[in-house]
Amino acid sequence: MKTGRELAVVLVSGGLDSCVCAAAACSEYKAAFLHVNYGQRTESRERQAFSEIADFYGIGKKLITSMPHLGGIGGSSLTDESMEIEAGCLYGSGTIPSTYVPFRNAQFLSIAVSWAEVLGAGKVFIGAVEEDGSGYPDCRKIFYDSFNEMVKLGTRPETDIEVVTPLIDMRKSEIIELGQKLGAPFQLTWSCYKRADIACGTCESCLLRLRGFSEAGLEDPLAYVS
Amino acid sequence: MKTGRELAVVLVSGGLDSCVCAAAACSEYKAAFLHVNYGQRTESRERQAFSEIADFYGIGKKLITSMPHLGGIGGSSLTDESMEIEAGCLYGSGTIPSTYVPFRNAQFLSIAVSWAEVLGAGKVFIGAVEEDGSGYPDCRKIFYDSFNEMVKLGTRPETDIEVVTPLIDMRKSEIIELGQKLGAPFQLTWSCYKRADIACGTCESCLLRLRGFSEAGLEDPLAYVS
Repeated sequence: MKTGRELAVVLVSGGLDSCVCAAAACSEYKAAFLHVNYGQRTESRERQAFSEIADFYGIGKKLITSMPHLGGIGGSSLTDESMEIEAGCLYGSGTIPSTYVPFRNAQFLSIAVSWAEVLGAGKVFIGAVEEDGSGYPDCRKIFYDSFNEMVKLGTRPETDIEVVTPLIDMRKSEIIELGQKLGAPFQLTWSCYKRADIACGTCESCLLRLRGFSEAGLEDPLAYVS
Repeated sequence: MKTGRELAVVLVSGGLDSCVCAAAACSEYKAAFLHVNYGQRTESRERQAFSEIADFYGIGKKLITSMPHLGGIGGSSLTDESMEIEAGCLYGSGTIPSTYVPFRNAQFLSIAVSWAEVLGAGKVFIGAVEEDGSGYPDCRKIFYDSFNEMVKLGTRPETDIEVVTPLIDMRKSEIIELGQKLGAPFQLTWSCYKRADIACGTCESCLLRLRGFSEAGLEDPLAYVS
């Protein structure tokens, strides 16, 4: 724990990973929380999770913004009601699932870096995960390394903003163990892609989460339909 | 002019540079036009210019989106009504002017790349200018080179999307000459940072434009207050 702590912008979707990422950021930095509504089906439930996690950490600087075009342009079952969300398939078919939202993280990070530049924050935290992820191209470490090079060139010379991915190499069970250690409020998070009342327990995101808790030997505080 | 033309996404603000950029794109590609409202003072006038330029080129695929947070987070006199827009100073004070919107182009490009991935477009055109620009870090060629590296890593492996900056090395007068050659509709464009009815003729953007027409030996079809 530092004194006179530096400011960090943290992308908080309201999901489990972003909550643990926020816990990691708050253990070292003064945090500003950013949430982006991009027209996903479960947005209102995720925004509720964001607000409750922000309250848990006593965050003063919060920014909720929207990117309506991500819903409008389609291309992902997360935002396009006419596409089916496939049941989870955790062990790698080698294809990118329909829940992939094209270039989404680059958009989130660009907003976060812009806000960081205005606030004078030196770090941007994002809870992206490569190892246990779903094959999304913008969840890979090489993408973030490249993004950071681009940030150096695209911001004022006197700024020094770095995107930090504390979970990038972790398995879901390791993320849950880290969250447990840091006292992350799992009970406030929302992961389900399909439902906003009780988690479905069968979509890819629910399956990853449940497997992670199981492997960590911990109980998921959320209720599930199945 | 190619037959069976490839699709390109073109960022069109409604200003002179974006209009010439669009003219360049439309001479080689089938174009989809993207306009982003980021809370700038003259947005409604710029959106009008966008629509008229799109109609001029008979564009079917148009996307107008908004990024309300760019206004909300402040940091630029273009979006923050409490900041003064300084009078133009064209010959380089070495400082970045107050009209700089932090990391704005990265945000625009991220949206454009996302849309390009969904549409299957291979190019994203942006009318950024380094030479005659205003010292914005995200208007430099090295920024776009780095952005393209990041795009390769952040999009589906089967996509091949390249950001193209046809005006990057041009002076304003050269842009105007190119636009003249391509038949770009200068009369439909809007450049003024300050006003939305008659261009002020004194802000940095108006001064750059007027000097460009003067150096190109052409007459600007717009009316000016002074």
